[in-house]
Amino acid sequence: MTMTAPVNTGPTGYSLPLSPTGASAMLTPPPWHFSGEVIMVDYRVDPEAAARFLPPGLSLGSDPGAAAAIFAEWQWCSESGAELADPQRCQFAEFLILLACEHNGVPMARCPYAWVDSPVPMLRGWVQGMPKQFGAIHQTRPRSVGLAGPKPNAPGRFDGALSVHGRRVAEITVRTERRITQPPQLHAVPLVHTRMFPTWTSAEPPLAQLVTSEVTGVEFGEIWAGDADLRFPSVPDADFAGLLPVEIDQGYVFSYAETLCGGKLLGEA
Amino acid sequence: MTMTAPVNTGPTGYSLPLSPTGASAMLTPPPWHFSGEVIMVDYRVDPEAAARFLPPGLSLGSDPGAAAAIFAEWQWCSESGAELADPQRCQFAEFLILLACEHNGVPMARCPYAWVDSPVPMLRGWVQGMPKQFGAIHQTRPRSVGLAGPKPNAPGRFDGALSVHGRRVAEITVRTERRITQPPQLHAVPLVHTRMFPTWTSAEPPLAQLVTSEVTGVEFGEIWAGDADLRFPSVPDADFAGLLPVEIDQGYVFSYAETLCGGKLLGEA
Amino acid sequence: MTMTAPVNTGPTGYSLPLSPTGASAMLTPPPWHFSGEVIMVDYRVDPEAAARFLPPGLSLGSDPGAAAAIFAEWQWCSESGAELADPQRCQFAEFLILLACEHNGVPMARCPYAWVDSPVPMLRGWVQGMPKQFGAIHQTRPRSVGLAGPKPNAPGRFDGALSVHGRRVAEITVRTERRITQPPQLHAVPLVHTRMFPTWTSAEPPLAQLVTSEVTGVEFGEIWAGDADLRFPSVPDADFAGLLPVEIDQGYVFSYAETLCGGKLLGEA
Amino acid sequence: MTMTAPVNTGPTGYSLPLSPTGASAMLTPPPWHFSGEVIMVDYRVDPEAAARFLPPGLSLGSDPGAAAAIFAEWQWCSESGAELADPQRCQFAEFLILLACEHNGVPMARCPYAWVDSPVPMLRGWVQGMPKQFGAIHQTRPRSVGLAGPKPNAPGRFDGALSVHGRRVAEITVRTERRITQPPQLHAVPLVHTRMFPTWTSAEPPLAQLVTSEVTGVEFGEIWAGDADLRFPSVPDADFAGLLPVEIDQGYVFSYAETLCGGKLLGEA
Repeated sequence: MTMTAPVNTGPTGYSLPLSPTGASAMLTPPPWHFSGEVIMVDYRVDPEAAARFLPPGLSLGSDPGAAAAIFAEWQWCSESGAELADPQRCQFAEFLILLACEHNGVPMARCPYAWVDSPVPMLRGWVQGMPKQFGAIHQTRPRSVGLAGPKPNAPGRFDGALSVHGRRVAEITVRTERRITQPPQLHAVPLVHTRMFPTWTSAEPPLAQLVTSEVTGVEFGEIWAGDADLRFPSVPDADFAGLLPVEIDQGYVFSYAETLCGGKLLGEA
Repeated sequence: MTMTAPVNTGPTGYSLPLSPTGASAMLTPPPWHFSGEVIMVDYRVDPEAAARFLPPGLSLGSDPGAAAAIFAEWQWCSESGAELADPQRCQFAEFLILLACEHNGVPMARCPYAWVDSPVPMLRGWVQGMPKQFGAIHQTRPRSVGLAGPKPNAPGRFDGALSVHGRRVAEITVRTERRITQPPQLHAVPLVHTRMFPTWTSAEPPLAQLVTSEVTGVEFGEIWAGDADLRFPSVPDADFAGLLPVEIDQGYVFSYAETLCGGKLLGEA
Repeated sequence: MTMTAPVNTGPTGYSLPLSPTGASAMLTPPPWHFSGEVIMVDYRVDPEAAARFLPPGLSLGSDPGAAAAIFAEWQWCSESGAELADPQRCQFAEFLILLACEHNGVPMARCPYAWVDSPVPMLRGWVQGMPKQFGAIHQTRPRSVGLAGPKPNAPGRFDGALSVHGRRVAEITVRTERRITQPPQLHAVPLVHTRMFPTWTSAEPPLAQLVTSEVTGVEFGEIWAGDADLRFPSVPDADFAGLLPVEIDQGYVFSYAETLCGGKLLGEA
Repeated sequence: MTMTAPVNTGPTGYSLPLSPTGASAMLTPPPWHFSGEVIMVDYRVDPEAAARFLPPGLSLGSDPGAAAAIFAEWQWCSESGAELADPQRCQFAEFLILLACEHNGVPMARCPYAWVDSPVPMLRGWVQGMPKQFGAIHQTRPRSVGLAGPKPNAPGRFDGALSVHGRRVAEITVRTERRITQPPQLHAVPLVHTRMFPTWTSAEPPLAQLVTSEVTGVEFGEIWAGDADLRFPSVPDADFAGLLPVEIDQGYVFSYAETLCGGKLLGEA
């Protein structure tokens, strides 16, 4: 019997950094579990401006110009749950904008802009096609005792704020008044992203795929609704300015969980 | 009738920066309201080492060597509540160590070390005599939905971690198992601090006063207890090393609120 | 011969936290050595507004309304130089405003506002009476090779920016054109501060002293001057608004070093 | 004459976020100019361990086990130079490890691990195949005046430190003693990366290409060399542990600039 040396297939891993066993990869493979607290406002933007953010294959659908601004404070973990033992690694905050759209007659939500405050979720966003950038993000936390904060699952005031490069980009205020039973529309439809990896060598076009996220384990806590305000004190660029609110609808506060399992290809983008 | 110009009494304010109306002061005057989530471990240190951290006027009391390590994630506001509208300003995390002691026969707790992650609470600590330094502090947040975190008010695992200057100084793990009715002893007694302001001009000794904090509005949520672990992976200095655990007792998780109204002078220190 | 136990004088240190040997103190005692890179703009404010920031004992002097905005990126160490071995501890950035004033006929500079990005320099500021708050501070670094930055000691563009609580508070631009021989006036006079420690117990007024800083080892590198701009995009409060520029003069870029040895009492404030 | 509506080709940009004009892209396309200050140590690792980090197509070459640890503090800008006006955006610090290797007989350097402290350089790393993660990175800055730092281009002590998730991962000390004329070997050869984008939809393997970086405008300032030390106090994982130093050679301090123009495909990886 002869022994053959194993073929060197090189360092491995779900993501960079590749290493002999894959242990060094910055990202763990999906599924990823998320449990979070959400503050959200429905608003409306100029439908023509919204259309300019949609790639071929998507249309505005039945409610053109419907949009949402969402603050969320997440805890996450991989299948093993290992990250939960180090709270510095398993927590992040997020702000994102959603636009109502449709793909082959199916209502979906398109995310033109998103920010997080932690590098692993930022890169994970790029893997799935979410355009996550880096920002400083804070939101009101409900407090079950004392005077410094609203009570959970009760009327109260909730604020969120996003700063980017030291400038205040977005602020949200929701005054919850009543419990409702239906989740906000744009938080209940699938997300559709352009998964994109920039060109580097001259020989190649950029990778660009239209994908939707595959999600299980969706869970909502009590959903509270009420008056809302939404402000963009410092606009990052002229394209962003196209999506400023023309009307502000109601706001929502709720707990939310999901498991993100991977993506499904809808087409080349 | 003659008009006299008002005497210029100069810029004013509860703290620096002084300004014409006092509006620029970094600190608002007490009372300050606090609502927080606490993860705490009872442990024991060498009583002789603990004694060396007590100023004249304090003794070890009836339980020499009793100590506690406490992580807390706070929301706070001044009397007006104005800070709550900007979550970036009204949130901070804290880690502190407490030693059992006694003043004139009254059981109290002495804080030899504390860290926060926000400058206003740090300076406010110095005003009241708490030796707050700056660190990176994170702790598990309960989540009412999903898989990424323990449920509130139920058995589960809670972790906390403190890093200072990029080194991991303290880590705590509490596995809650049962609800109890009595608050942990060292969280139920008054704090006794040395309010101290360093010497600057050659003409003066440093300000140093023994003070206790005046607190109202104390509120506890459900108190859960269970097995605990406490680690100090990187010891900041040789004095700190004297307070390493010689025994680790049980841990606690609870919501807590108080209003800090000011200080009471116990003596010159 | 009998042995007597040493008297317990309690934990010690130049500052909190007090500890058995003083090793845990957050602050080392002066002297403190500073070596930095400075970007500075001379400008003018409404003299009446400036006067409202001066405590009794100070007057506007011979150039009422003269002001300066200063960005500096420092390296510092105590007498032993020990901090230099850990670059995370010995570096900080600063932004401050100075107002021309006079004490007993001596030209001085008054600092109504200052921000740093590191907790030790912030607290050290309070010990000496500088009203240092916390901000995100960045300034152009000269680069001796390549295209990404101005050359040291040569014509070029230098920018500085301060953000506080996620809002952009100050921005500076200096286009150096020529070398000059005299330091800018407000960087060449002593600083005069109100050393102030807030009230905590009802029994006491706040500590408040008029002090000037004692400085040795002053060293300037080449001083370059040129056109300047100064912007305050987001004004922190109405008192700060009184000091907005009514005229912008020239700007300066230079290296600067000093040793801060302590303070000298000018009077009770 | 008839007007035809333009075909909607969708939002555009060099990277996410895609937007109507491309103005919102987080990354600008290359070229990118870099000017930096470098502190570097040559050392040796176990050659067998190094080999396990090389993908097919690369071999250890003529100096198996040669490695380098590099701290650098960069300023960068795109072709337009626009980023230089906002110092918060154009500065970052980096720590990376290099391993000597060979591709088709050409000496190259392989980067198994890298960290930066800013999100744009992190993502730009992934575009080019550098495994950049996020860390807190600080290094000694030379100072031309005063006592708080070494003089530029002269004998002196330079330190660097990397912390990741609040743990100190790497520390470097170089005591420069003499000026040398040749750049360190591993800073003078091309980098060879695995450009990799993780799998997301089940239909596809991950993108993985062996690429080298195309660089122009290389410029070195004075190169100073001397004794060095290199410590890894907290090892991130077992694969990283394979690359711990078995021998530490000399260290270097120098200014360095380059322009990164794109990548060249060496093969599928």
